[in-house]
Amino acid sequence: MNFESKFSVTVNRIKSNIIRELLKTATAEGIISFGGGIPDPETFPIKKLSEISNEVIMNEYKIALQYGSTEGDPELRKQYIRLLEKYEDITCLDEENLMITTGSQQALFIIGTVFLDEDSYCAVSKPIYLGAGSAFNQRNPNYISIPLEKDGMNLDILEKELKKLDEEGKIDKFKFVYTVSNFHNPAGITLTLEKRKRLIELAEKYDFIIIEDDPYGALRFEGEKMPSIFKLNKGERVILLNTFSKVLSPGLRIGVIVGNKELIKKMVLAKQGMDLCSSTLTQRITARFMEKYDLFEEIQPTIKLYKEKKDKFMESLEKYLGDLEEVDWVRPEGGLFSWITLPEGFDTMEMFEIAKEKKIIYIPGETFYVDEPERNTMRVSFCLPSFEDLEEGSKRLRATIEEYAKKKGLPLKIK
Amino acid sequence: MNFESKFSVTVNRIKSNIIRELLKTATAEGIISFGGGIPDPETFPIKKLSEISNEVIMNEYKIALQYGSTEGDPELRKQYIRLLEKYEDITCLDEENLMITTGSQQALFIIGTVFLDEDSYCAVSKPIYLGAGSAFNQRNPNYISIPLEKDGMNLDILEKELKKLDEEGKIDKFKFVYTVSNFHNPAGITLTLEKRKRLIELAEKYDFIIIEDDPYGALRFEGEKMPSIFKLNKGERVILLNTFSKVLSPGLRIGVIVGNKELIKKMVLAKQGMDLCSSTLTQRITARFMEKYDLFEEIQPTIKLYKEKKDKFMESLEKYLGDLEEVDWVRPEGGLFSWITLPEGFDTMEMFEIAKEKKIIYIPGETFYVDEPERNTMRVSFCLPSFEDLEEGSKRLRATIEEYAKKKGLPLKIK
Repeated sequence: MNFESKFSVTVNRIKSNIIRELLKTATAEGIISFGGGIPDPETFPIKKLSEISNEVIMNEYKIALQYGSTEGDPELRKQYIRLLEKYEDITCLDEENLMITTGSQQALFIIGTVFLDEDSYCAVSKPIYLGAGSAFNQRNPNYISIPLEKDGMNLDILEKELKKLDEEGKIDKFKFVYTVSNFHNPAGITLTLEKRKRLIELAEKYDFIIIEDDPYGALRFEGEKMPSIFKLNKGERVILLNTFSKVLSPGLRIGVIVGNKELIKKMVLAKQGMDLCSSTLTQRITARFMEKYDLFEEIQPTIKLYKEKKDKFMESLEKYLGDLEEVDWVRPEGGLFSWITLPEGFDTMEMFEIAKEKKIIYIPGETFYVDEPERNTMRVSFCLPSFEDLEEGSKRLRATIEEYAKKKGLPLKIK
Repeated sequence: MNFESKFSVTVNRIKSNIIRELLKTATAEGIISFGGGIPDPETFPIKKLSEISNEVIMNEYKIALQYGSTEGDPELRKQYIRLLEKYEDITCLDEENLMITTGSQQALFIIGTVFLDEDSYCAVSKPIYLGAGSAFNQRNPNYISIPLEKDGMNLDILEKELKKLDEEGKIDKFKFVYTVSNFHNPAGITLTLEKRKRLIELAEKYDFIIIEDDPYGALRFEGEKMPSIFKLNKGERVILLNTFSKVLSPGLRIGVIVGNKELIKKMVLAKQGMDLCSSTLTQRITARFMEKYDLFEEIQPTIKLYKEKKDKFMESLEKYLGDLEEVDWVRPEGGLFSWITLPEGFDTMEMFEIAKEKKIIYIPGETFYVDEPERNTMRVSFCLPSFEDLEEGSKRLRATIEEYAKKKGLPLKIK
């Protein structure tokens, strides 16, 4: 049978995940990878999780092995409210302000479904978190792509674009701004307090919603913790997304959406047709873990480890790339990523072949754009490689850049 | 903020789940419920699951607590292929013919996304499984609703409709027939071998796909096991959906799609944006359970229990409704449901208020239609109530019917 004619327009629009394809081709012995954005499995609290899962299955099977509500486990929502109170000073939430999702990816997909039609507009950062792109793309909206600066989205450009939409009479089709507020994936950047406040002002002026995605906020190594946009706006027009993937385990597939009750209600309706409910077993395990242990106390060793790796990585990049003109990188205060920019004319996707030969892997930046990409950028993660590999990998990166420059006849200026 | 203008056309189309709303209002003390379609939690193998989950977390945490592939756990796919070989005599499948989903609901949602646009057609049974309706509705397709008879879909009507579409030049917009082949939810009906074969013939003639949803097939109490449509067609144009919710535990949220590799590839692309992957923990637990135990041997006691309950229920219905003219019900050979039809003029949704007073709950049939509903039908499940409650509930049902008939001045003829 020829299936081509049977596929929907929507699915024919979906492109294969380039990161996945790239990583598949890069599996040679001895390779050092800055590619992954996944936590170190040695940081998972396996003994505690195993004990809790035993208790949950034996004593709470009537709930933990049964169908659950689409909104999510009430116990988990209760625990999460407690955590937001304690660590984010967000108060006055009740269970109806929260829903549980199958990982943050589903939260993004639900956001797309609930707000976007083909004639809708939304603003996203440039570069954008790939998962958000793939979730929103299924709705085929119009993107307004806003460049990231060292202190977050360029809000002057955002305001200009909003003004333009307003003048064109299309502002009612503008639904939301999507932002990763802390330690952005892929760019490692954090939105400053000043910009957070200004973003809220813009949202009020142009009447839009802010989607604040914060998977990395708990992984701050240094610098001052910032209030969430959600907190600053008292949750009025901000939807906060979070996940347990970076602070407990991705395999549980637990995400959280926090927002206005009316919005949560709509999102629950959307999720119902998507998967009825997330795993009641992993939800209850997470709830009991949070009840018994202080999630953020538990990850202090992880944060310490990541900070040391980040310091080592920054030091290595300085050592091997520091003398190059027009080469720069983000020095993150938390999270898993830095973002390297090479001189104009470099194409990191093309350069990837040389990198593979030199046994060093990064993610070419061009994968993180919903429109015209910048080709001289790359995402690099420091959380999985060993300290030695962070140094050796940086050295290989220098060699890769040099060989590519030579091959393409690009000037590589020394400071 | 007024959110109304921000919602998508898609989400504004989603109606709240009526079953959920009904069951919420029906929580009084002493109520007997034929409403649920959920397994008896006492049938969950908690000791075995707890042991396995312990082993999986302690020994396989690098996989079971980490992100996994969108296709699903290779170990689980391997085990499922083994099961299909052993119990369904389906051979020649490899891992690329399978993907794992977050419950069967996600499988249905993916099917909708991959095949349906707003100008697409698909045929579904009348009544339809509610979850399929809510998944497909998000795509807003054109439905061709085919009445169920005691031996399955009325294929004469299906053929007539297909012919009509063909004549109108729209047959290329016809994507699939969706059918629950064994012990239909809500109707309890099984598609006969003859009709299975004829459905395949029609699919070949009019070039469409068959979606065979089989969550209940393993729960056969009596009668002869039938080859799946997938098996009969060698999987060429049939996509088989299954789930562990009825044979192991719904809380794991594990469904399976089996089909042509080209189709699976597209479905994996769609799932990626939806939730990246299903819980790697519950997938690996399921895989190890299947490796260590024979899933179908394990559920024999459950099947025996359900059969006894079904027998008791059929006996009770005969006792309390058997003398009524124009009242009939489905005598299922497996699964969880029967379907009662009352005389013309009865409205089971309206009657629900009286039922609540008499402390008996069923699901009004009108919830199971994507177009014009029949109002004199109801879904009744026998798997959760005790033997005493199956009898007492049937008695209350009779009293409900009598009181409603009296109130509405409807004749209630005795045979």
